[in-house]
Amino acid sequence: MNYSIIRYILGWVLNFEACFLTLPCMTALIYKEREGFAFLAVLVLCLVFGMLLTSRKPKNDTFYTKEGFVTVSLSWIVMSIMGALPFVLSGDIPSFTDALFETISGFTTTGASILTDVEALARCSLFWRSFTHWIGGMGVFVFLLAVLPMTGGSTMNLMRAESPGPSVGKLVPKIRQTAMLLYGIYFFMTVVEIILLIAGGMPVFDSLTHAFGTAGTGGFGVRNTSIGGYSDYLINVITVFMILFGVNFNVYYLIFAKKWKKAFSCEEVRWYLIIIAAAVGVITVNIRGMYESVGQALKHAAFQVASIITTTGFSTTDFDLWPQLSRTILVLLMFIGACAGSTGGGIKVSRVVILVKTIKKELDSFVHPRSVKKIHVEGRPIEHETLRSVNVFMIAYLVVFSVSVLLVTLDGFDLVTNFTAVAATFNNIGPGLSKVGPTMNFSEFSGLSKYVLMFDMLAGRLEIFPVLLCFYPSTWRKF
Amino acid sequence: MNYSIIRYILGWVLNFEACFLTLPCMTALIYKEREGFAFLAVLVLCLVFGMLLTSRKPKNDTFYTKEGFVTVSLSWIVMSIMGALPFVLSGDIPSFTDALFETISGFTTTGASILTDVEALARCSLFWRSFTHWIGGMGVFVFLLAVLPMTGGSTMNLMRAESPGPSVGKLVPKIRQTAMLLYGIYFFMTVVEIILLIAGGMPVFDSLTHAFGTAGTGGFGVRNTSIGGYSDYLINVITVFMILFGVNFNVYYLIFAKKWKKAFSCEEVRWYLIIIAAAVGVITVNIRGMYESVGQALKHAAFQVASIITTTGFSTTDFDLWPQLSRTILVLLMFIGACAGSTGGGIKVSRVVILVKTIKKELDSFVHPRSVKKIHVEGRPIEHETLRSVNVFMIAYLVVFSVSVLLVTLDGFDLVTNFTAVAATFNNIGPGLSKVGPTMNFSEFSGLSKYVLMFDMLAGRLEIFPVLLCFYPSTWRKF
Repeated sequence: MNYSIIRYILGWVLNFEACFLTLPCMTALIYKEREGFAFLAVLVLCLVFGMLLTSRKPKNDTFYTKEGFVTVSLSWIVMSIMGALPFVLSGDIPSFTDALFETISGFTTTGASILTDVEALARCSLFWRSFTHWIGGMGVFVFLLAVLPMTGGSTMNLMRAESPGPSVGKLVPKIRQTAMLLYGIYFFMTVVEIILLIAGGMPVFDSLTHAFGTAGTGGFGVRNTSIGGYSDYLINVITVFMILFGVNFNVYYLIFAKKWKKAFSCEEVRWYLIIIAAAVGVITVNIRGMYESVGQALKHAAFQVASIITTTGFSTTDFDLWPQLSRTILVLLMFIGACAGSTGGGIKVSRVVILVKTIKKELDSFVHPRSVKKIHVEGRPIEHETLRSVNVFMIAYLVVFSVSVLLVTLDGFDLVTNFTAVAATFNNIGPGLSKVGPTMNFSEFSGLSKYVLMFDMLAGRLEIFPVLLCFYPSTWRKF
Repeated sequence: MNYSIIRYILGWVLNFEACFLTLPCMTALIYKEREGFAFLAVLVLCLVFGMLLTSRKPKNDTFYTKEGFVTVSLSWIVMSIMGALPFVLSGDIPSFTDALFETISGFTTTGASILTDVEALARCSLFWRSFTHWIGGMGVFVFLLAVLPMTGGSTMNLMRAESPGPSVGKLVPKIRQTAMLLYGIYFFMTVVEIILLIAGGMPVFDSLTHAFGTAGTGGFGVRNTSIGGYSDYLINVITVFMILFGVNFNVYYLIFAKKWKKAFSCEEVRWYLIIIAAAVGVITVNIRGMYESVGQALKHAAFQVASIITTTGFSTTDFDLWPQLSRTILVLLMFIGACAGSTGGGIKVSRVVILVKTIKKELDSFVHPRSVKKIHVEGRPIEHETLRSVNVFMIAYLVVFSVSVLLVTLDGFDLVTNFTAVAATFNNIGPGLSKVGPTMNFSEFSGLSKYVLMFDMLAGRLEIFPVLLCFYPSTWRKF
């Protein structure tokens, strides 16, 4: 294990976190909140540690998958611990466990909250809470790679650990350019959403925080009613942007590069939109009677479907009161998730497409035993290695899921609560059903359950293996 | 598609079913029940169809996986339809859908019932109901291959479609001898159980039917309280035999062949027993307060764990009233299931072991990227093809499971009911939780849901692909 490079990169992550913390400090300055000092103190702390760790260049800057995975996991954990401190110091969230839960939920773009009264928080805390979504959405390493000229050759291992989906494609040959492009598109789309929200009459502070939540597909709101209190226009803008941020960012690069045909023939996005359309259609019919008009039912159905499939987790209405069919569809969408290469979580549409095609291929192999066909996605045959890694991912997913449900069950809540609590955190969504429904929160869980759910959020965001590797004894063994 | 061989084998299946039907006819004779005429009528019907279909030998007796899978699926469907007719004709279960549900539940050794009052049935109907478990447990094709001298070379394809587990091993080089050995062991163990039950004071009729239910890991009882009303001795005998019938039958063959060392070093059985011991331990502690002594708690815990992990589905107590932890453990056991090559259902312990080892191997491959290690089970490296088929099985399992839950949800019941109803039928267990708990039944479901659950029972028993292949258009297309 190359400890010096891990130390060095961790240092840079802390330096960047210090930069990010300037924003809540500025917010505190604007609103004249004394909670801002907590953020300032942690900013200084990050900077001191960061400077210390980056003062010496590593002797050896080569690193492999193992180092990449461990670095990314550790960075996310360290980043979350530091990010949680201002909440504790300012007294907004006095318990460290709760503050850590809230911060991990923020960075992993889950949006599950332990807060019963969001509106009681200081503006700067609310801003930081939503801004963690924006950082976590595209990923801190993508940012780091975009900004920092990394010398080592295998920086791809960092990006691979942090980017969602079965395979990470470089948009352009150079990794730094790819990272810059991704953040450029991300930044541009966020700004467009902020402008549209402000234009619709949403206060500037709310527009910023909600745009961060949408962009990172996070889901922290700044009102106790989440998005419920806003106008139809604002709800629809957020619906559209949630769906847009759930699209594979490769598509935006292709549009940016004017490769229209290739952009619009993306198979994953096609399935993603078909699933959304089907779910919205069925749910609209199913909940029709609960709202005054078809239009209203459609609005809520579209918002909720977009919110759940992109794993954002905003809500406009208490969907835990919807009929069973609609709720079950939402639970299934929780698992499907958004597109690979987007800011969303879940299993990812491309994996689901590959899985379904695997079954079709298996049936075909019985019907035509001698034909050797490969599975094609996006018109290209799938590599054996990709297929294998999708399968292994699914297996790890199932095992982590089952063990988590079992551990959370110790709290004695009902099966729907436990099942959807794990589903909502592991898929980085936020709210589940029953005791963790959209009008409820995660504060009732015991410490053990909270740590299990934190693990699930990190494992979900980093696609399991980087986090598992941190807890695997052989990783730390000398040999 | 070689239709003539499918027709021929279907004919033989009907002939065998006619033979099996002589037993309920005899039961009716003993108890002087006029419902016996219904069984006699169907017996004659089976014989007429069977004779007709087997009158001409097939021109061509080669068949491939496709024919094997389709033949087995169709046989199970035809067998169930014929087996359901006596219930309808005798008036014991007037609705054909319900009768078919009950019969498929019987043959697939599920034990899920639509009956509200089991004790109202005629003795011959009760006997037939339990006897279907015994036939389905080891499999009708294993019987057919044991008895009928099949000429074609690829009869293995029939056994492969019907036998549970990731890989079917022939105990001895000749398939007919293997089949005879399996049925010999099965028959012997059933007889031992019957003797022990009668010795413990259980009425002969109850002993026979419960032994059939245990042997096939089915779960149909003949009393409304299932096994609850019997003495501790009888409950413990059934507990032990449920566990024994969930063991891989290869182990019994090895014991029979006096290969002691090999028999007792079976990795799958070791894990199977470890899981049982762990689950019984935790549940005993968890339910301790609900029973008068630790012994009673242990008795119920052991019985219920054995009943669920072997997918039998008998019950001694309403475990839906147990604390959440115990119920969640039972739900997880539902999915794990018994050993491969046993009469039990579920995912199978060997698959779970392979899946967990896959994760470990993946982590190792990150830590030591250059080492190429194979996964070992039972001391031997796992073939790539086995690994692939386990993965594909899991994927198909997930997809069928999700779609089934969605369809059953249309009935509007709660999530726990729908989820455990599918889990209980797809894993061939019987009772689930909530509205399909041990004291409830499946009668409240709509026709659509019942057919979905019937599909799940068949898909679960035949390990998905044979049944899926029947509904796959390409299978029937000429090319």
